[in-house]
Amino acid sequence: MLEYGLIQTRGFTNVIENGRVTGFSVLLRMPNYRGAWGSLIDGADVTVDGKAFPRESVRWTLGGRTFTLDELQASTGVHWDLDAPAVVTVPLDGGLSAGVHEVAVTVLLRSPYIPAFALPLRFEDRRTCTIVPTGIGDDAGFRYGVSVYSLTGDINTVMTLEDAMADIADLGGSGVELLTQGIPGYPEPSAAWIDEWHRLCETYRLVPTNISSWVDNQMWRDRDLTVEEAAAQLERDLRLAHRLGFGYLRPKFGVISPELDPHPTWRETVLRNLDLAAELDVVLNPEIHSPTPIQHPVTQNYVRFIEETGTEHVKLLIDTGIFQTELVTDGHPGFDEDEVPAFLRPLKTPMSDLAEVLPHVGFVQSKFFEIDDQLHDLHVPWADILRTLHDGGWSGWLSSEYEGRREPYRGREQLRRHHALLRTLAADLDRTAR
Amino acid sequence: MLEYGLIQTRGFTNVIENGRVTGFSVLLRMPNYRGAWGSLIDGADVTVDGKAFPRESVRWTLGGRTFTLDELQASTGVHWDLDAPAVVTVPLDGGLSAGVHEVAVTVLLRSPYIPAFALPLRFEDRRTCTIVPTGIGDDAGFRYGVSVYSLTGDINTVMTLEDAMADIADLGGSGVELLTQGIPGYPEPSAAWIDEWHRLCETYRLVPTNISSWVDNQMWRDRDLTVEEAAAQLERDLRLAHRLGFGYLRPKFGVISPELDPHPTWRETVLRNLDLAAELDVVLNPEIHSPTPIQHPVTQNYVRFIEETGTEHVKLLIDTGIFQTELVTDGHPGFDEDEVPAFLRPLKTPMSDLAEVLPHVGFVQSKFFEIDDQLHDLHVPWADILRTLHDGGWSGWLSSEYEGRREPYRGREQLRRHHALLRTLAADLDRTAR
Repeated sequence: MLEYGLIQTRGFTNVIENGRVTGFSVLLRMPNYRGAWGSLIDGADVTVDGKAFPRESVRWTLGGRTFTLDELQASTGVHWDLDAPAVVTVPLDGGLSAGVHEVAVTVLLRSPYIPAFALPLRFEDRRTCTIVPTGIGDDAGFRYGVSVYSLTGDINTVMTLEDAMADIADLGGSGVELLTQGIPGYPEPSAAWIDEWHRLCETYRLVPTNISSWVDNQMWRDRDLTVEEAAAQLERDLRLAHRLGFGYLRPKFGVISPELDPHPTWRETVLRNLDLAAELDVVLNPEIHSPTPIQHPVTQNYVRFIEETGTEHVKLLIDTGIFQTELVTDGHPGFDEDEVPAFLRPLKTPMSDLAEVLPHVGFVQSKFFEIDDQLHDLHVPWADILRTLHDGGWSGWLSSEYEGRREPYRGREQLRRHHALLRTLAADLDRTAR
Repeated sequence: MLEYGLIQTRGFTNVIENGRVTGFSVLLRMPNYRGAWGSLIDGADVTVDGKAFPRESVRWTLGGRTFTLDELQASTGVHWDLDAPAVVTVPLDGGLSAGVHEVAVTVLLRSPYIPAFALPLRFEDRRTCTIVPTGIGDDAGFRYGVSVYSLTGDINTVMTLEDAMADIADLGGSGVELLTQGIPGYPEPSAAWIDEWHRLCETYRLVPTNISSWVDNQMWRDRDLTVEEAAAQLERDLRLAHRLGFGYLRPKFGVISPELDPHPTWRETVLRNLDLAAELDVVLNPEIHSPTPIQHPVTQNYVRFIEETGTEHVKLLIDTGIFQTELVTDGHPGFDEDEVPAFLRPLKTPMSDLAEVLPHVGFVQSKFFEIDDQLHDLHVPWADILRTLHDGGWSGWLSSEYEGRREPYRGREQLRRHHALLRTLAADLDRTAR
């Protein structure tokens, strides 16, 4: 699906030709109801951060063919369809800087059935768009991915799963996280869905990273799951994870306290699945999530379990919300603003705790809530987190998980900002390491 | 695609069981990010026009199976997926009246991984929804359809073509209009697209009615189309119309005056395609559209053409905007509000003109801009139009064409209101005729 506005989030990027950055491109949705012949396009006025680019310099790509404005106006049979964005490329030596830009576009169209005095039609849009740095090698040893949870609300309404995966590839990510219960037909998705999943992973060159799974211990009102039932839920999801190509599975158990103490059957549930996890080579990584910090019995119990069993297939998933320094109240429909539950209050877990537990960390769910126009995160200290991971020699997935406000399209733009921030910090780490 | 809100536009309808209206149903999108087991649903509170319905009385349909709340809470393996709406059915003897209703819904969900003090999660939505009367036979001899132009902006962003067609079927329509240039891959859509089109028409039992086509005479800056080129454009679209199953094609020519005088080649362009139109049995119906009323040289030239050639394959398409009594300024991006062009000013064409030209009318594009909460059209006199058509013995398609404000989802709700209004007026005509 295309975005409702003229200017699209996806595809705002610097253009590299012969190893040199020669400009930037932006994707535009056809703003007129019927589409238009290329010859009826009178150009686009593009302004970025107040700098206007001449209409005549812009190149247009429609249906895979690229044109100057003159060529487009003389063309026959070239059509800007309603379902396919035009790629507008603007020459600019060195391109745009990484980060957030104010972009304004006016598209001009003629239409022969409209009287000449009313032409050209003008279609305007203005918004912020983000350039994600694409420096190869500047990764500080981490791998970068996205959880589709970031696009909650958007998927199935204004985006398809394919849109989500195209977005991830477009922002330079190489890993994708899913939720078991978000899969159509769960717990038994169709073979067609599974084939399509593999096709999408291949098309967008994405590695399935972690799948978030639940053991819903208290799924009925009158009794809890037995250990057998709980173990069967986990087994089913482990097999599904493996079938979809995931190397990590986050099991989330029912809780029995406000501090998220897991249901007492958790230990036996995991124990019964350890051999299967090893056989399928899927790591089970319980989530360390606010309000449970690292120095907490719940987390320490997981660590003890790992050490006692000696398993290689249980690790910790760190949700970076535990490092949060400022309160966030929005993004949680279902709670009143006045009754902020404990698990939304900033924990400010110290970096020394992360360093200490690092050998047991398998996966980092890079939870965030808001990145502003200057690429500052208002709640989570990314520079500290990345330095701690880097200094501890940790390498693995940083999987962005946006959990801020849920207006349509907000998540997809915030993900670009988050990746721009992470990649900028990673480049700094790489530079100081050299 | 589902609608972003909890309450969906499509599917708000009275429920008939054994020939009796026993209640109404409403479709809800899963409001939680992960979906939910049926056993974790704590019910839905539904209020219509201030009347609350008991949570316990509501029946739930998920995955084609229907449950009481007790049955749902005791169920295993029933899952409310993110991509599939729940059908909530509320018992109400006689159902809801035709027209617009204020609907409020609160969905309650438990989630075992969230501490008990924060449960159940509550998800609320409130909006207006429209019941379209489904009285069979109350059609006053007309057939009812929709132009997908009504959903401009929504299609390819928040709706697919299939959504549009499902909406039309759901509101009781049996015909669908397309725009040639809105077809992906136009002028040569893929065989796969054409197959899919026929599949959709069959699935939703929709007749392809009229296809809107353009002869873009002034498609280049330096010269107009020759007659040969113009005739070839029309021929191409006639063949496409036939291949897609349309019986009417509206050719729109480039204009040479503010009063929409068509390009002087129009006559020869149509003449050269008359035999083909007859062979394919597709009626060419030029559009009588504001600012060109019926008593106008442009319209009279079309009438003369029909009479002189004696053709059965050219008729008039009446856009009901010519009967408009009040000014509408919105819904036309591309024009400044202060410079209302002539073709947006209310023409107030008298009904006697319609009656006079009726023998030449092939198709009625039921243009409208806004229907209010009381089912009043603020701009177009529908009672007069329907009575004139009915009294003149005209029968044919009334194809709703919404041209009001373009916020997402507005068109689909306005189409329901328009059909509710038309069907209510038709029932009145049928009643007085008996």
